[in-house]
Amino acid sequence: MEVSRTFEAPASGYAVAEIKAEGLVRIVNADGGQVGDLFAFVAEKRSEYASAPHTRSITRRLFPSEGEFIFSSERRPMLQLVTDSSPGRHDTLYAACDPKRYEMLGALPDHRTCATNLEEAMAVFGGLGMPTPQPFNLFMEVHVSESGGLEVTPSTAAPGDFVLFKAIEDVILVLSACPMDVYEISSGGLSALRIELLERK
Amino acid sequence: MEVSRTFEAPASGYAVAEIKAEGLVRIVNADGGQVGDLFAFVAEKRSEYASAPHTRSITRRLFPSEGEFIFSSERRPMLQLVTDSSPGRHDTLYAACDPKRYEMLGALPDHRTCATNLEEAMAVFGGLGMPTPQPFNLFMEVHVSESGGLEVTPSTAAPGDFVLFKAIEDVILVLSACPMDVYEISSGGLSALRIELLERK
Repeated sequence: MEVSRTFEAPASGYAVAEIKAEGLVRIVNADGGQVGDLFAFVAEKRSEYASAPHTRSITRRLFPSEGEFIFSSERRPMLQLVTDSSPGRHDTLYAACDPKRYEMLGALPDHRTCATNLEEAMAVFGGLGMPTPQPFNLFMEVHVSESGGLEVTPSTAAPGDFVLFKAIEDVILVLSACPMDVYEISSGGLSALRIELLERK
Repeated sequence: MEVSRTFEAPASGYAVAEIKAEGLVRIVNADGGQVGDLFAFVAEKRSEYASAPHTRSITRRLFPSEGEFIFSSERRPMLQLVTDSSPGRHDTLYAACDPKRYEMLGALPDHRTCATNLEEAMAVFGGLGMPTPQPFNLFMEVHVSESGGLEVTPSTAAPGDFVLFKAIEDVILVLSACPMDVYEISSGGLSALRIELLERK
């Protein structure tokens, strides 16, 4: 296996990649500790998207782990999580950060957000055309108590940690290096993420 | 307080109600044991909807409970859960049932679904215009383990149990009496739910 193409999501920015069915793609935590909001859309029908609620309903788990699939809003498998070198916590519960969130937190009005990163990314495909889907928040460590309380702790993903997905069909991936810096969900400051397409040699 | 209007969601069917700001509305489990998928939209701007991911992100809880608010996709409070006479478990994790779900479960093609109930209900308002939002699954008892496993047990809501909401602004409520009968999430067979608008005397 070797890396055939690389797309960098700079700190607070985003990357877009089109993956063919059967393609392998690695989401790499370049410097460690960075949370990444992952969105995915079926290339041939962009109204069908990777859906956290449908995935949870099918897998009966809150957090995706090795071997499991991410399902679409039409309950079809879109991505398989093949290998995970990270501590393995990936949140599916928190909405993407958006301008309103930073306004409520008292941040500057030009603070970048995962929701606007997604909108910008999808502009070249004719626009998002739907409300921001619930993202798959890679490397985001959410803890759940039995009574349903949620706690987020700073990401413990190490530099170079990655999640390897196999695409089940042609998909568009959007990865936002989450700009959240009011709460410490990323650790060690905001940093970049990478999308690497892999090719069998 | 007295009931000024009643809207019945028959077994497997739905009810729609428009509530004015400050209005009180009771969702009643008429015969007990019935799960109800609740959707809500801002009356003046129907693209803004009651959002489980945004609510979870703000309340930091999986399950809404007395005193808490349900927030919109623009992070504004829409409904307050004032009183809950039921055992108090209301799921925010499971996607609405839809035709694909019943197809996968081997049910008949005309099986009713919460997603199509919502579509029919919103037709009179010009259509839903977005993918099915994650519903607030009232009286649905989901249990979460610390490792993120999910288990659903039959509803233990008693006949007459209710959840009382206060509308924070003008909202459209859609309540689907969930038709799921392949898995026993409702108990004692499928039954009706009621929306009751209350009036201060």
